[in-house]
This record gives sequence, C-alpha cells and structure tokens, in this order.
Amino acid sequence: MNDVTDASPAALAERLARAAKAASRKLAVASTGQKNQALARLAELLLAEAPRLLEANAKDVAAAAEAGVTGAFLDRLRLDDKRVAGMVEGLRQVIALPDPVGAMEDARRRPNGLLVGRMRIPLGVICIVYESRPNVTVDAGALCLKSGNAPLLKGGKEAFHSNGVLVELMRQALADVGLPADAVQAVATSDRDVMTALIRQQGLVDLVIPRGGERLIRFVTETATVPVIQHFKGVCHVYVDRAADLEMAAEIAFNAKVQRPGVCNAMETLILHRDVAPDLIPRLFPRYVAAGVELRCDARTRALWPQGLAATEEDWATEYEDLILSVRLVDDLEAAVEHIQAYGSGHTDAIVTNDYAASQRFVAEVDSSCVVVNASTRFNDGFELGLGAEIGISTSRLHAFGPMGLEELTARKFVVFGSGQVRS
Amino acid sequence: MNDVTDASPAALAERLARAAKAASRKLAVASTGQKNQALARLAELLLAEAPRLLEANAKDVAAAAEAGVTGAFLDRLRLDDKRVAGMVEGLRQVIALPDPVGAMEDARRRPNGLLVGRMRIPLGVICIVYESRPNVTVDAGALCLKSGNAPLLKGGKEAFHSNGVLVELMRQALADVGLPADAVQAVATSDRDVMTALIRQQGLVDLVIPRGGERLIRFVTETATVPVIQHFKGVCHVYVDRAADLEMAAEIAFNAKVQRPGVCNAMETLILHRDVAPDLIPRLFPRYVAAGVELRCDARTRALWPQGLAATEEDWATEYEDLILSVRLVDDLEAAVEHIQAYGSGHTDAIVTNDYAASQRFVAEVDSSCVVVNASTRFNDGFELGLGAEIGISTSRLHAFGPMGLEELTARKFVVFGSGQVRS
Repeated sequence: MNDVTDASPAALAERLARAAKAASRKLAVASTGQKNQALARLAELLLAEAPRLLEANAKDVAAAAEAGVTGAFLDRLRLDDKRVAGMVEGLRQVIALPDPVGAMEDARRRPNGLLVGRMRIPLGVICIVYESRPNVTVDAGALCLKSGNAPLLKGGKEAFHSNGVLVELMRQALADVGLPADAVQAVATSDRDVMTALIRQQGLVDLVIPRGGERLIRFVTETATVPVIQHFKGVCHVYVDRAADLEMAAEIAFNAKVQRPGVCNAMETLILHRDVAPDLIPRLFPRYVAAGVELRCDARTRALWPQGLAATEEDWATEYEDLILSVRLVDDLEAAVEHIQAYGSGHTDAIVTNDYAASQRFVAEVDSSCVVVNASTRFNDGFELGLGAEIGISTSRLHAFGPMGLEELTARKFVVFGSGQVRS
Repeated sequence: MNDVTDASPAALAERLARAAKAASRKLAVASTGQKNQALARLAELLLAEAPRLLEANAKDVAAAAEAGVTGAFLDRLRLDDKRVAGMVEGLRQVIALPDPVGAMEDARRRPNGLLVGRMRIPLGVICIVYESRPNVTVDAGALCLKSGNAPLLKGGKEAFHSNGVLVELMRQALADVGLPADAVQAVATSDRDVMTALIRQQGLVDLVIPRGGERLIRFVTETATVPVIQHFKGVCHVYVDRAADLEMAAEIAFNAKVQRPGVCNAMETLILHRDVAPDLIPRLFPRYVAAGVELRCDARTRALWPQGLAATEEDWATEYEDLILSVRLVDDLEAAVEHIQAYGSGHTDAIVTNDYAASQRFVAEVDSSCVVVNASTRFNDGFELGLGAEIGISTSRLHAFGPMGLEELTARKFVVFGSGQVRS
C-alpha cells in the first residue's frame, strides 16, 4: 500500500496511477493460469484470514452505527462467515470464466495477403468508485484482475478498515504467485482532491467506473478527463400491449416490481394499453396492494382504480427502488414508446404482447440497454444474460451498454501479419 | 439550418442538440434502403450544384489566402471538379457498404428458454470537430448517416462557405427522401462558447470526435462531459529485429517514412537491433538521404552513420509529419518495446523479423491500436484493414481503438425474447 502521508493530493494520485500503470503492463501479459492462481490464492487467504477481516469489519460497522446510518446501508456493510464464503464462491466462479485477453477475432485475409485480426487486450488501469460494500471490493477486483486490468479501488469511507484488509490480501495473493502487488491498490483516503486528480490522469488511468448515487456519478462525469462509464439509475418500464396474454402480463408486471424492488432493473412504471386496462387492473392491482405496493396512477388509470394515488409529473422520472409503482394508461404502442423515450433512463424496458409486429416495433424503437419481450425486466443482469459475471450495468452507450462482464473490460487492437507488404 | 442570431451560446447549443436528437430517433429506425437513397440523392445534388459549391469554396480560398495561410492548408481547403467527383465516388462507396444497424449478434438460448442477443444500434448524435477540409464534411457526414447517427458538423472556420453549401445539400437530400433534414446540422459559428455548451449536452449529444491539432483535442477532452473519442498524433515505430530479412526491412522502413510522410501512420522513429544496424544502415540510409529525409540519430547510430544529426530527447516523442526520421539503436527486443511504451502514442508500431518468438512477443507486449509484423505502418487505415471506410483513427482504447468504420459508429443493446419468464 502506498504511504498516503506527506504527499499533496495531486502527487498521491499520480503515484497511485503510475504504480498501477506499471503493474498493469505486467498483468496484461500474464497467462490465464497465473491470473487464476492469484484468484485461488486470494480465496485461500480470505478463509485463512477471515477472523482478522471480520474484526476490521466489526470496527467499520460499529463506527457506522455510531454515526447513525440506516439498516439497509449497515446490512450491506456487514460481513460474516457466510458472506466471506460468498466472496470465495464468487472467486471460484470468476476463475471458471473464460479469459477474454489475447483472443483474436474477425481475422481476415486482405487481397494483398495481409492477415488482419483484432486482438482483445485489457483496458489498463480502471478506477472504480463504489459504495460501502466490502464484497464489491473482491468482486470488482477479481473481474479486473481476470481481464488483465489493474484496479484502483475507491470504496465508501464507511468500509475503510474492511477494504484495507481485503486489498492487503489481494496484494499478498498477487505477490505470492509472482504478479505485481500494485496491480491492486486501494485509494485509501476520502480526500476529494485525490479523486479529482486521479480521474484526470490521462495516459495513466484508462477508465473510471462510478457506481452508486447520482451525485457521485455527476461529480465524476463533470470532473474526469479520462473516459467514464456511467452506471446511472434505472427507470424501467413494462408496457402491456393490447395483444398481451393477460395472465402472463400480470405475472411479469408483478415480478418486475415486487421480486426485488430495491435494484436498478426493477420496474418503476407500468404502462397499460387502454384496451387491456379494464381486465388487467382487477387481476393485478389487488396483488400489488397485498404485497404492500403503493400505486401512483394517472387520471385514466384512477378512473378504473379509484383507490390509487394521483401520479405527478415527477413520478414518471423517479427511480423509487421501493414498493412504489407509477401507472399510466395509453392509447397505443406509439404513446408507450414516447413515454419511455421521454421519461426512461435507457436501462431496461419490456413489452408484453402476442402481436408480432408490436414486438418487432418495440425492439426497434426502444433504445435502452436491454429491451425485453414477454419477460421480466429483472433479467437485465450479467449472470442472467449469460455474461457469467458483471461489474455493473452501463447506461452509457459508448464502449459497453448494459451489463459489463469480462469482455466489456477489454479493448481490441488490430494485429497485422504480413510478409513484407508496403503501400504504393 | 438553424438561425444562429439572437440566441445565447448555451441556448443555441441546446437547440442544435435537441433538433439533432429528435432527428436521430427517426434516422435510427430508417431502413438501409432509405438511408442509401439519401446518399444517392446527395451524390446527384453535388454534381448538379457543383458550380455553386465551387463558387462558395472560391470565397473561402480567397479569404484564407488573404489571411496568409500556408500551401498545404490551402490545398486541403480547395475544391475543384475532380475533388467533387471524389466526394461523389466516396458516397457510392459508402452506399455499397453493409449497414451495421439492426444486426443481431451473439444470440444465445439461456437455460430458462430466454433468447438473448445483442442488437447494433446507432450511437445517436455525434459532434465532429474537424479541420478546414470540405471533403471531410461529406465523408464524415455520410458515414454518420449510413450508421443511423445524426452528425453535428463543426468544420474549420476557413471552410465556412463551402461547408454551408455542403450541409445545405445534405439536408435537402434527406428531405427529398422523407428523412428529417435536422439529421445533419452544421455548427456554423466559431464561438467557442457554443462548442463548450454543445459538448456538455449530456443526454442529447452522445459522442464528440475531435480531429486535428493536439490543442483542439485537449480542449475538447478537458471541457466535454459527453464521451470523447480522441484521434491523437501518431508517433509510429518500425523495429528491425536481429532476425530480420534486411531487404524486407529496408523496403518497409523506407515505405513507412517516405511513401506519404504527412499522415499519422507514417513512421517517425526507426529502432534498429545492434546486430543488424551495421548491414542495414548502408543499404537504407543513402536511400533516405536521396529522398530528402533528415536523419536524427542517437549516439550509437551516429557511430555507424556519422553524417546523421544528433537526436534529442524531444525527438523521440515528436510526430514530424515530414521528411524527418529519428533513429535509435537497441540491444534487444525488450529495449525496443520499452522505447515504444515510453515514447509511442499507441497508434501504429511494426516489427520486422523472421524470429517466430520475437513476432509473438512484440504482438503481445506492444499495446498500440495497430501492431504490425513484417509490413509497413502505413496499412493502419480503415480501407486497408478492411473496414471499408473510416471516420478517423482512435487512439483512445474505450469503445474503438484504431480505425473507426461504420460498425465503430454503433453500440449494442441487449434484446431478450421470452415467453413469460419471471425471476424467482
């Protein structure tokens, strides 16, 4: 770990970034076997050093409780033997994933005999700014290492002691298998000036991924001069089309809201075609009410469900992450798509329909990171979509859009094999 | 064209961006046939309106000459019948290219029956900031349109009148085939405040591509809050390995420097293995001298070629874009790679060798956008590498690295086809 004393914020940031860049060059040419060994060694160390980790975590939890943080926050911060076992299991899953680095794609022979292909390479140094969740330290760190990237991990300050131990173990695991320890570093300060300097280290830091609150993401986007991949909120929709199977629609709309309301791919707004609303509402809304869902409805929906609260303009753009649902009634598919374009966040939007043309049109016109036909929005997730893992869900279109797995943590360079060709 | 009078820079920028975003949504769902019709119509209009275009261009050229600009600059600004024919030919080539939009890639069936694929979609609104080269207006505009993107074209101010006519014709062509004219707009002001506001229109502008001088690129990178793809300088290397075929090495090294010295994929530094330098220098350097190349050599090279000038530290990092070459002698492949990592710009680097292991190691360790074995650096070009066209060469790793063709102007969204699946 770098010594953070006696250095200006800018100097500290540059030192972290330089060390990461140098380590990333070695990591970029490490074999898959060596990277997997490091992850396996980390799994061993996590189990062996669990008591010390839990002790550090207990300090964090006590300090956070003292500071009066809320239950859900505290729960995410807390580690126990089961969660450590979960981290270890996560590492085993990452070890089992194919390594994207070095793959040669789209190799074609040019008319002049050149063989031109595109080789997957790590991005380099990735700065990840995230919540006070110690498990993310290991999950995100492992995905970066497996894809040959050196992470600079800036976790929430409440997890300071936990992350200190976790990063120490990651560095030890790297060193134990002959890889540079600096391939993982913690940004172990809450000095905002260090973050500001870090995300402006062009040529040393290749990407910053801010996770968490909108204010943090805005700060990083405004401040960074290195590329940013944003993981913004999810204002996700389910549109029940005129031609929907109403039983299926009810199951999907219920699942998308209720199965896990606190996550970004949960539905926040239900859009109903006017022709199905009279039949669907009596089937579905009592289930919502029984599950404790608060319904905020537009005027046309309230005409059919008078007990609903009145939705305001603000509701349409709100990610509740809670048992609250806004409901809108529309005349046709076009109005549904317009609503999604106007208020959605480009995250996940679903249609329920048995009309072929409507499904095709929805898929073509809705430009969210994940467009779903006849399934729950909750499937927009790296595991569910088959990426094997995810470091987050990008709502930026550039580079990666939607869940980011190992492949999305790489770039591609052109490789040209010739036999003496020159241009004339 | 938007009326640029009576509006604050921020208001003008937002108006341009809003109009572009609305048009981009329509363009995104336009068929390939319709987009090709617009490009074909533009080709017709360019020929029909050539006299008016050349008249506008003559005004630009006269003003630039009056302002005392240099020969090469003036040459790039100037249009004539042949160059208009070149634009038309370029349009025909873009028409012939496959449309990436709507392609479904990597579609796989998940265990729960979901069909998950990734559909190519346009990026949206792309702001392109470029030199005073009217042909770029048409080339870049056509590539954006074909890939379903709405360009905001900010050409150099010296091409003001030429670009005015060109953008007018592009807008007419769009309207003539029933596409929104606002899918192409010129940023017809040199007010830097407008540019500043434009590249901060998050949610409306999806990407800015600065082309041209380093100062411009730095300004855009520092200022933008929307994603930037940089097209930085090319400090390209050819490394002649110990095991090189010296005749091949001489041909490649000569071609890479001399065939077109003013472009970004021309070689700027030649790195020679100490074992081949004594044989290669007498074969190659007289050819350089005869071609008017100024040689700036390190001390060890000058020991073998005393008439060479002494290279300074600054030379190693300089993109001459001219008949100047820096030369360095190294002890081994490792030193060559270290030099490239220290001074290169991540653009294009080549090795000449017949040693299999050396070629593999160079390909693995050099992380430039294009790594070449036994061919000229001059092949790093969208046409030569088989992309069909290019809007520029990215030296940023994120999203696109190397030449950007039509596919690199798109993103991918996840599309999920289900039959009622919910998460449990």
